[in-house]
Amino acid sequence: MFCPIDRDELLYLTLQEDIGLGDKTTNAVVPPDKRCKVKLIAKAEGIISGIEVFRRLYEINGAEIENWESVTDGTHIRKGQIIASFEGNARAVLSAERVSLNFLKHLSGVATLTHKFVSRVKDLPVRICHTRKTMPLLRAMEIDAVVHGGGHRHRFNLSDGILIKENHLEIAGDIALAIRNIRERISHLERIEVEVTNLDQVKQSLKAGADAILLDNMELEDIKAAVKIAKGYPVLLEASGNINLERVRPVAETGVHIISVGAITHSVPALDISLLIERI
Amino acid sequence: MFCPIDRDELLYLTLQEDIGLGDKTTNAVVPPDKRCKVKLIAKAEGIISGIEVFRRLYEINGAEIENWESVTDGTHIRKGQIIASFEGNARAVLSAERVSLNFLKHLSGVATLTHKFVSRVKDLPVRICHTRKTMPLLRAMEIDAVVHGGGHRHRFNLSDGILIKENHLEIAGDIALAIRNIRERISHLERIEVEVTNLDQVKQSLKAGADAILLDNMELEDIKAAVKIAKGYPVLLEASGNINLERVRPVAETGVHIISVGAITHSVPALDISLLIERI
Amino acid sequence: MFCPIDRDELLYLTLQEDIGLGDKTTNAVVPPDKRCKVKLIAKAEGIISGIEVFRRLYEINGAEIENWESVTDGTHIRKGQIIASFEGNARAVLSAERVSLNFLKHLSGVATLTHKFVSRVKDLPVRICHTRKTMPLLRAMEIDAVVHGGGHRHRFNLSDGILIKENHLEIAGDIALAIRNIRERISHLERIEVEVTNLDQVKQSLKAGADAILLDNMELEDIKAAVKIAKGYPVLLEASGNINLERVRPVAETGVHIISVGAITHSVPALDISLLIERI
Amino acid sequence: MFCPIDRDELLYLTLQEDIGLGDKTTNAVVPPDKRCKVKLIAKAEGIISGIEVFRRLYEINGAEIENWESVTDGTHIRKGQIIASFEGNARAVLSAERVSLNFLKHLSGVATLTHKFVSRVKDLPVRICHTRKTMPLLRAMEIDAVVHGGGHRHRFNLSDGILIKENHLEIAGDIALAIRNIRERISHLERIEVEVTNLDQVKQSLKAGADAILLDNMELEDIKAAVKIAKGYPVLLEASGNINLERVRPVAETGVHIISVGAITHSVPALDISLLIERI
Amino acid sequence: MFCPIDRDELLYLTLQEDIGLGDKTTNAVVPPDKRCKVKLIAKAEGIISGIEVFRRLYEINGAEIENWESVTDGTHIRKGQIIASFEGNARAVLSAERVSLNFLKHLSGVATLTHKFVSRVKDLPVRICHTRKTMPLLRAMEIDAVVHGGGHRHRFNLSDGILIKENHLEIAGDIALAIRNIRERISHLERIEVEVTNLDQVKQSLKAGADAILLDNMELEDIKAAVKIAKGYPVLLEASGNINLERVRPVAETGVHIISVGAITHSVPALDISLLIERI
Amino acid sequence: MFCPIDRDELLYLTLQEDIGLGDKTTNAVVPPDKRCKVKLIAKAEGIISGIEVFRRLYEINGAEIENWESVTDGTHIRKGQIIASFEGNARAVLSAERVSLNFLKHLSGVATLTHKFVSRVKDLPVRICHTRKTMPLLRAMEIDAVVHGGGHRHRFNLSDGILIKENHLEIAGDIALAIRNIRERISHLERIEVEVTNLDQVKQSLKAGADAILLDNMELEDIKAAVKIAKGYPVLLEASGNINLERVRPVAETGVHIISVGAITHSVPALDISLLIERI
Repeated sequence: MFCPIDRDELLYLTLQEDIGLGDKTTNAVVPPDKRCKVKLIAKAEGIISGIEVFRRLYEINGAEIENWESVTDGTHIRKGQIIASFEGNARAVLSAERVSLNFLKHLSGVATLTHKFVSRVKDLPVRICHTRKTMPLLRAMEIDAVVHGGGHRHRFNLSDGILIKENHLEIAGDIALAIRNIRERISHLERIEVEVTNLDQVKQSLKAGADAILLDNMELEDIKAAVKIAKGYPVLLEASGNINLERVRPVAETGVHIISVGAITHSVPALDISLLIERI
Repeated sequence: MFCPIDRDELLYLTLQEDIGLGDKTTNAVVPPDKRCKVKLIAKAEGIISGIEVFRRLYEINGAEIENWESVTDGTHIRKGQIIASFEGNARAVLSAERVSLNFLKHLSGVATLTHKFVSRVKDLPVRICHTRKTMPLLRAMEIDAVVHGGGHRHRFNLSDGILIKENHLEIAGDIALAIRNIRERISHLERIEVEVTNLDQVKQSLKAGADAILLDNMELEDIKAAVKIAKGYPVLLEASGNINLERVRPVAETGVHIISVGAITHSVPALDISLLIERI
Repeated sequence: MFCPIDRDELLYLTLQEDIGLGDKTTNAVVPPDKRCKVKLIAKAEGIISGIEVFRRLYEINGAEIENWESVTDGTHIRKGQIIASFEGNARAVLSAERVSLNFLKHLSGVATLTHKFVSRVKDLPVRICHTRKTMPLLRAMEIDAVVHGGGHRHRFNLSDGILIKENHLEIAGDIALAIRNIRERISHLERIEVEVTNLDQVKQSLKAGADAILLDNMELEDIKAAVKIAKGYPVLLEASGNINLERVRPVAETGVHIISVGAITHSVPALDISLLIERI
Repeated sequence: MFCPIDRDELLYLTLQEDIGLGDKTTNAVVPPDKRCKVKLIAKAEGIISGIEVFRRLYEINGAEIENWESVTDGTHIRKGQIIASFEGNARAVLSAERVSLNFLKHLSGVATLTHKFVSRVKDLPVRICHTRKTMPLLRAMEIDAVVHGGGHRHRFNLSDGILIKENHLEIAGDIALAIRNIRERISHLERIEVEVTNLDQVKQSLKAGADAILLDNMELEDIKAAVKIAKGYPVLLEASGNINLERVRPVAETGVHIISVGAITHSVPALDISLLIERI
Repeated sequence: MFCPIDRDELLYLTLQEDIGLGDKTTNAVVPPDKRCKVKLIAKAEGIISGIEVFRRLYEINGAEIENWESVTDGTHIRKGQIIASFEGNARAVLSAERVSLNFLKHLSGVATLTHKFVSRVKDLPVRICHTRKTMPLLRAMEIDAVVHGGGHRHRFNLSDGILIKENHLEIAGDIALAIRNIRERISHLERIEVEVTNLDQVKQSLKAGADAILLDNMELEDIKAAVKIAKGYPVLLEASGNINLERVRPVAETGVHIISVGAITHSVPALDISLLIERI
Repeated sequence: MFCPIDRDELLYLTLQEDIGLGDKTTNAVVPPDKRCKVKLIAKAEGIISGIEVFRRLYEINGAEIENWESVTDGTHIRKGQIIASFEGNARAVLSAERVSLNFLKHLSGVATLTHKFVSRVKDLPVRICHTRKTMPLLRAMEIDAVVHGGGHRHRFNLSDGILIKENHLEIAGDIALAIRNIRERISHLERIEVEVTNLDQVKQSLKAGADAILLDNMELEDIKAAVKIAKGYPVLLEASGNINLERVRPVAETGVHIISVGAITHSVPALDISLLIERI
């Protein structure tokens, strides 16, 4: 998937951010050609995401990895489990350790939190989707982590799907007019979604031919009513706004097709993982 | 402070990440020269950080801001308070809204969480410091947020201070030898800190002339003992490892000079803030 | 719209390509602060596109433009007409002249050729669309030129719409299976188009729920048959392949919704335009 | 030869332009490790140019090419001939197909058109040269294509040779003065050419010691007269302006040394070439 | 003139090299909005070059310069003279001071040393030229400094002129063959120079039609003989190799047209200049 | 060590600076696959530095080096000695020759000059250090060259150590206040040095708790007095300002710990080295 900078370039810049003028400690106490063994260990239960990014950082840093073994992204790991092990140049390992853990712990945190939401509704015909509330430049990785946790894709960004939001309507006024203008300008391969906050807007959207409707921050009763109103229309219903682990199931039970959750990317506890280095 | 890419470049890339081929919705429904009023509202209590980044994103996106008013970074805001208000080009405002909130909500989350730790020990002679467990490319901003929340600076990165860690000693072996090698290679303006996990290493470090000692993941009793052992030496003591809001005060009361906390940057709940747009 | 490099960066690089070590002739014979008058004159009839790019090149090159007057993109101009006039720094004007004309003449060539196709079918309910057969890095500008000439947008690139082509089916095998796999992976905001070369594939695509069907290089009789078969389905029909000025109208008369034409971007005669400089 | 961005960087950016957020269709229907056979087939007669660029695009896109066979640049191919064949990763092949053809078809178009001009005068002692009327950032490739078609090099850009044009003289005034000023400032390794539009300017240029004279848009009779006037001077004569396939031979027969032709780069029909993929 | 990176980009990177994570001293002791007066004072006699670069560094660093006064490049200054004075933001001035002096002292060193060579031969019809023995990325600035010191331009780089050197002939073999091959490939606007080490090669070069001959490291007697041999040919003679302040005049008196001197760019004592800051 | 651009990127840009549109001479006279033998020969005695940079330039330029043999950085070589020998592609060797020598001769010049200073004081307990008076973007390489010549490291740049200079005090006023403000803002791993010009300031600095004192441009007698005053304080003394080969020993004999010398990087005669190419 896409990032406005190459993934490798992003990883390289992040290593530079942490290495700066050089890892003065490591360069002084570790001989240049010394190699070491590394074990990556889970300190808590969760879903792993970002293992390829983790590995790539060491390659970019010149670790010349050998004997790599690891679980794959999406693996459910238990506390104490070895996630990966490898050998590499000791200087390169030590100076990339922090950055590699920063990526892996955050992305696994996203996958783990997503998985909790998905688990609550896994018997229902509903998708848990991400939002655009992501960390700067990490969106592609975080969305992959959402998928690793069992979630589904929404539009990637503002050019990857049409969504007429409340703030657009404040300027554009009429839902029907907005939909008509957009159809004129876009290719025939795109659908149009409208964000609404009440049942009246649901009806306007259906009448104007919306392909999907986002029910924003609506009460359970209203969501149920919206599902009823939309019955028979070729339209998809999405619920969003303050979805938490308690609320996700009742919302899903209303019959909406999609639930999008901001918290799985914007308020993520890092998964506890640590790195053990042994001399060879 | 420093970032391996320009701050403006980072903001620009993040806008590109979200705008991609163009904000198709906004471009279709909002006239190019339309302007709008914006209000930024706190949905929860906290400390604001990142207000300049927030503003800069709109400038970079071409919003031609007027009538800007805002609180400054470090301000304690209450739920419902208006954080900022301004007028700008409606297209530029709408297409930068999400990214601007992503930055502001995260950085204010860091400041708010830091402030909670600082509040617990504000009557004690101890510094709450950040670690290097930061989000990719956001370290400079996050450290500023830590300062806005009342915290203090630690080394920025691996070239901004010498810290001999456990993994270094696994390779380098002897603390005394490591310190000697480092002194040879560095300028006379740098101090040397050693990470230790037991009292024996504390003694070795003191004997070898360490300028600072990081007590990693040690029990309260051991920390107290270390403080006692170090009395009289020209050395600073830092505690780190699993510091949470419950544990920070007892650790501070042992008499260490510095407590560094990973959670204030690696597991941060976003501060709830929203943007209201009105037509002009 | 999008380009993997900034539009300004592209223009700057193109200026660099032509200026290299510096415009040795101009620097030697024109005083640094000398200003001049410029007239841009059509040597042939056509549709103008790229006038903003034209102007921007002089700004980037430091021409400090004054008294700018010009037609807007999309204007139909006659031979001999003045397209634009302005004053600027003589050195900057002279060293950007060639590059500015290279852009303007090509983009106006695209608009002019598109307009010829559109004119043939303007009374019919059909869209003339571009393809992806565009000049490197000029796609966004060329698509704008197609719109200036009266054409419509198709997907911008491989991530801006799903189109299952013959070469995909050679690998993927079954149309129905391909559509099912894609629906699983994409967001609910995207439609799926299938490229077919015979009526049997048209039927398979309809049955598999394709949202659009591209009839590639098919005979007029087959296109008519396809239109008949698809009647009643919620599907859009697109014709493509060897569409020229003679063939566009009969194809349009079959009742397809979209005709896409490669030649309007891949085989474009430059519109003849020249620049006249006068000393002030 | 030179480009202000690396050739590989240009190819990479062009792939990015077409791939954007990722080739959604291919990624969904083609397994990651699937390989395929590719045949590149001429649909029309012409001269091939750009075969190395074509190949390089697949390498940059990760196709891991094997069993590559192809003609070389400059080869005259007939309709139906196989230009190249190879095997590669199916995803990488499919997502680079369009861009690779866009380059190859355009550059082969340049070579083919150049060859038509060269063929008309191949028995005469005259060079067919390119101008600076080239596509943005493609100048180096297009000039190579001109050479593949039998043409010759002119100055690459504004720093690669001195050419005093009509617009320079409008500012600089006197030909003799302009030549004198330039000689002062340039190294002893450069020659000076003057663009003229009448016989009087030819005489002035000869008197002022011009090393070459460009006869711009002059009538055949005047070109003949200029050749006569210049006899005996150590000077090269170049004709340019509205040179087409009909006019190139009579102009060459006047005895000028060089004929430069804008159309071979600014108004180029793409050579018809297509790509056939087979599963392995 | 040209540099593979923008001049501003080069200056910016050089400031980054010196500022790194930020000017910690200045940021701690100087208030953000404090302004100061600056005086730039010559501690030795010489020729100034680089004053615009000096100024531009402060602008790039955000100094918001006011009341700028300075001599121009090429000015002969005496010890103790004020070269420039201005006011600016104190933080920006202090953090750019070192870099600005590094540029100015070196470039003025180049101009001053060039001037010494030029002064020795100013009554003779000979040009003192630079070589390609320049500091990385500073060639354009250093050549300007050579011109400020009274010297002249040679080819800027390997594409800005043809010079067949000894090492080329070791591979290419024959001078006549090399010249013939080159003429075939280059445009009609370029001359060809040959580097020779003996009189026999001088004769070969003349016979093969060389436009210029570089007499490399030859004895005075041989240079004189070469001048004699070349009499009557349309050829320029250049002497180079171990030219110092003692040897430059006798070499010039042989009658060569050009003397190129490596030392004026590769072994340059910095001109002693210092910066005085006063509080306002 | 650090550079704001990658070392490889710097080398690549420098090659581009010299190669520009292409090495026209080499490309015309040397076949593409021709290989050659290269010998690098010292024309003067000195210390080599930059041999890895020298080699890397050929690799970046595509020379495909074989049979590489060379001395290591820091080697003392005598006139006439072979420094390195290798085989490589002849075109790549010829077009990188000049740039590779420009780097090697300058860096070896730095090492050689440093070595002269170090030799004068090698029996005394004092470090010879570099300053920040370095060539643009070459600081990391030049500091390495200083170390190869026997010198030691000082702070790399403005963020790599605190040094309160005269110009800071002009703005900040009081030494004690400045030190106090800085301590507040920096991490506990940094020391503070103060630049002074008289004994009174030495006393103020000691009293204010400075960790190091730079005695700038002070007379020998004053330096001796300062050493006496500082006795017993935990402080390092550094002397700087107009240190030349005559003055370095008496200054060292005063008992200062560090002497920093600008001339070893700002006024460096290139070491005379040349490259001999033989055909294979």
